[in-house]
Amino acid sequence: MRLRNKPWAKDFMAEHPDVLILDPEGKKGRWTEEFGNDAPIHIEVGTGKGQFIIGMALANPEINYIGIEHFDNVIVSALEKAIEAKKPSNLRLMRVNGEELESLFVGSEISRVYLNFSDPWPKDRHEKRRLTHPNFLAKYEGVLKANGEIHFKTDNRSLFEYSLVSMTDYGMKLRSVSLDLHASMPEDNVLTEYEEKFSSKGHPIYRLEAQYQS
Amino acid sequence: MRLRNKPWAKDFMAEHPDVLILDPEGKKGRWTEEFGNDAPIHIEVGTGKGQFIIGMALANPEINYIGIEHFDNVIVSALEKAIEAKKPSNLRLMRVNGEELESLFVGSEISRVYLNFSDPWPKDRHEKRRLTHPNFLAKYEGVLKANGEIHFKTDNRSLFEYSLVSMTDYGMKLRSVSLDLHASMPEDNVLTEYEEKFSSKGHPIYRLEAQYQS
Ligand SMILES: C[S@@+](CC[C@H](N)C(=O)[O-])C[C@H]1O[C@@H](n2cnc3c(N)ncnc32)[C@H](O)[C@@H]1O
Ligand SMILES: C[S@@+](CC[C@H](N)C(=O)[O-])C[C@H]1O[C@@H](n2cnc3c(N)ncnc32)[C@H](O)[C@@H]1O
Repeated sequence: MRLRNKPWAKDFMAEHPDVLILDPEGKKGRWTEEFGNDAPIHIEVGTGKGQFIIGMALANPEINYIGIEHFDNVIVSALEKAIEAKKPSNLRLMRVNGEELESLFVGSEISRVYLNFSDPWPKDRHEKRRLTHPNFLAKYEGVLKANGEIHFKTDNRSLFEYSLVSMTDYGMKLRSVSLDLHASMPEDNVLTEYEEKFSSKGHPIYRLEAQYQS
Repeated sequence: MRLRNKPWAKDFMAEHPDVLILDPEGKKGRWTEEFGNDAPIHIEVGTGKGQFIIGMALANPEINYIGIEHFDNVIVSALEKAIEAKKPSNLRLMRVNGEELESLFVGSEISRVYLNFSDPWPKDRHEKRRLTHPNFLAKYEGVLKANGEIHFKTDNRSLFEYSLVSMTDYGMKLRSVSLDLHASMPEDNVLTEYEEKFSSKGHPIYRLEAQYQS
């Protein structure tokens, strides 16, 4: 993710409050109202430039999607893409840290969490920053419905191995695992930016669906 | 596994009762006596020609090992290797079907189950034959100590994916997962025959440790 400074980002972000939520904490417990329907809400933590969440919103109009990304300079690219895609009504973006989930949603407000190509933080001393660390799993659980799911894709072998252990140790069950997603690409697979880049280099793409147990 | 007929197999097998147990069911509940010590007992189901279980027995004299294999023509090769290895006192072999575990061991008699390169049975209608099917997981649990473990290696992606789901759905937790064991080969890894063959062809070797929850 290049972190060029984009001095115009703040202004640009302020101009599209119908897609990029300006007061994320103000929506807590009110997402049904925000979307104007009570369809299930799926979020992606670490949305990056938004290709996945926008593609999902276009492909699945019966689901509401929220992309969460903590860097201004990155989320503006997602915002640009959302505008190009004519601002799907079932899509929202938020510039916020995934650590803050519990101030963004009440319990059970979310039906699914997507994690795609999350930063691997390979050093042991950075383990707590991995988005599949038990602390994060607890945060997701805090906002998910009972038996909610995490769907996770990555090309990073170590992070995937870590996540399999971390999730099952947390008490989650695996519902689906692919250790080479592109070997028999599911028809409904929406590629992320990183997925395009790394699969074209020949890396296998790993994917799992894990479910919380109540 | 070539299944040449070996007419001399029966006689040869009968000549080494100190390694190849002739009355498997007679040892049930009496394995401590059989080994002459109360060291933990680890079994391998589907031992094949025995390279792994014999290697483990030589490397870990403080553990007792039992290799279980259901074909005469295969287990005789394991027996030959065991004889070459001077019949380690902590090794036994049994020509028996893994389905019969509960008639071979009492509850808690076993500390760990190894599965290596188990037959993949790729067709859905053969799912029950996979050694990581829930029916088999229940059999292993029936003879394992509380919080016993399964250690599983394979090069077969589909079987590994299936097993991750099957084991966690059964309620087991993953304690360790490697999706390319040979990329950073653990010092204590003992190669199986199939592992040698398939890793030399460049297949990644998958490995997991899963633990029953009490
Ligand atoms: C490696 S990129 C992957 C982007 C995209 N998901 C993809 O697959 O192409 C990871 C992204 O997650 C964002 N990120 C990492 N930790 C985050 C957190 N705690 N909260 C929000 N975003 C985060 C990073 O800023 C970065 O844009
Ligand atoms: C593919 S070979 C692998 C042999 C060895 N574990 C290795 O890694 O080289 C599988 C072996 O498991 C044995 N096997 C399969 N199902 C079994 C069962 N239910 N009980 C005992 N042995 C079994 C087969 O006869 C075969 O020898």
